[in-house]
Amino acid sequence: MAKTPKTEKPEPAQGDTASEIKYPRRTERRRRTRLKILEVAVRQFSKSGFSATTMQNIADEADIHVTTLFMHFNSKNELATSLANDAVDRLRDRVLAARGSRPFFEFFREEALTYAANRRSVSQPDAALWNNLRKDQELAFAWTSYEYGQKGLYAEYIASEYDIDRTTSYLADLIAALVVECLILPHERWAQAPGKRNLAEEIEQAVNLTERAAKHMLKARDPSA
Amino acid sequence: MAKTPKTEKPEPAQGDTASEIKYPRRTERRRRTRLKILEVAVRQFSKSGFSATTMQNIADEADIHVTTLFMHFNSKNELATSLANDAVDRLRDRVLAARGSRPFFEFFREEALTYAANRRSVSQPDAALWNNLRKDQELAFAWTSYEYGQKGLYAEYIASEYDIDRTTSYLADLIAALVVECLILPHERWAQAPGKRNLAEEIEQAVNLTERAAKHMLKARDPSA
Repeated sequence: MAKTPKTEKPEPAQGDTASEIKYPRRTERRRRTRLKILEVAVRQFSKSGFSATTMQNIADEADIHVTTLFMHFNSKNELATSLANDAVDRLRDRVLAARGSRPFFEFFREEALTYAANRRSVSQPDAALWNNLRKDQELAFAWTSYEYGQKGLYAEYIASEYDIDRTTSYLADLIAALVVECLILPHERWAQAPGKRNLAEEIEQAVNLTERAAKHMLKARDPSA
Repeated sequence: MAKTPKTEKPEPAQGDTASEIKYPRRTERRRRTRLKILEVAVRQFSKSGFSATTMQNIADEADIHVTTLFMHFNSKNELATSLANDAVDRLRDRVLAARGSRPFFEFFREEALTYAANRRSVSQPDAALWNNLRKDQELAFAWTSYEYGQKGLYAEYIASEYDIDRTTSYLADLIAALVVECLILPHERWAQAPGKRNLAEEIEQAVNLTERAAKHMLKARDPSA
């Protein structure tokens, strides 16, 4: 192996490449550009829909050259998958901050209602995006990763709070599936008739039903199940 | 509108094209070829995995020219989606035959255990396919359609048996999500260690848990929820 000369370089963070270590300022700029792209992409997808948005639109809106955009993301699909992964990462941070100090259902109720409040402030095309997310062939993978990531985080939270071993019991994972579904269902209904339904009320109804069911499942659990 | 001459042609079935009506024998042959392709594809995907299987492999195995294969399916992804849709269609037939005469949970338990028994008879690579199905970018859409189709059929069954209005209550849809998840979870665990776990026992454990939870949800339901 080649010897590496000792320098004053900072410890490389996980995932850094050689060039990123060599040019820390470039890395910072790169990180900021990436964030900017993701921010613009989610806005454009919401405004015009996934299919109608081109890589060129995103580059223009982010005020970068399209070649730069492609250096960050090989395809629109990769961009969508990154958006999903980022959403899961942010959820992970919130889960780690709450776990151990807040009961799961209190945490989840707040998550659900914050989400509903944010959605309400965006315009109608967002409903169309949501409605199409699962049905869009290109977006299916991003959607699946997002759903899967959420389920895992919730299951882990529930398992740690209720002392459930996920390798021998399905309880925490089944409840997590219920919890994720109780966010999807109101969205689907709302997206079908965004003017007629109140998303926050719909979500609250679904969350109430889910919490009651989950708490019963936890109370009635057979330790051997 | 152009006049259509009266002939002895049979009534066209829904979805038939002009050429299919003109050449009924060709249509029948086409239908048989399509079934053969789907049959071969599922076997090849199970044996070699989705990525490793080529359209040429499938054509060879089905004893047709690859051009013929492409006349039926534009891509491997389209083939996978058709497999998923066919599986949903078959489930729909079973649901329609059972609805009204058999309680949902009796029907579902049998579905789950029949499935487990069939899986047991196939070899290990099948576990790998199952394990990758949700994580494969190309297969995600097929997977999502399948899951979505299953959920809808189960929700409809539950709603009709328990007199639930799906436009005002989330109950039937939440239970359907639980029911679908209780099939996925044992598969995932089993696929991770196919030699060590008994799929039928795992499924039975998950089905028991789900049935208890669902029946409680149905019993405790608030008619206004």
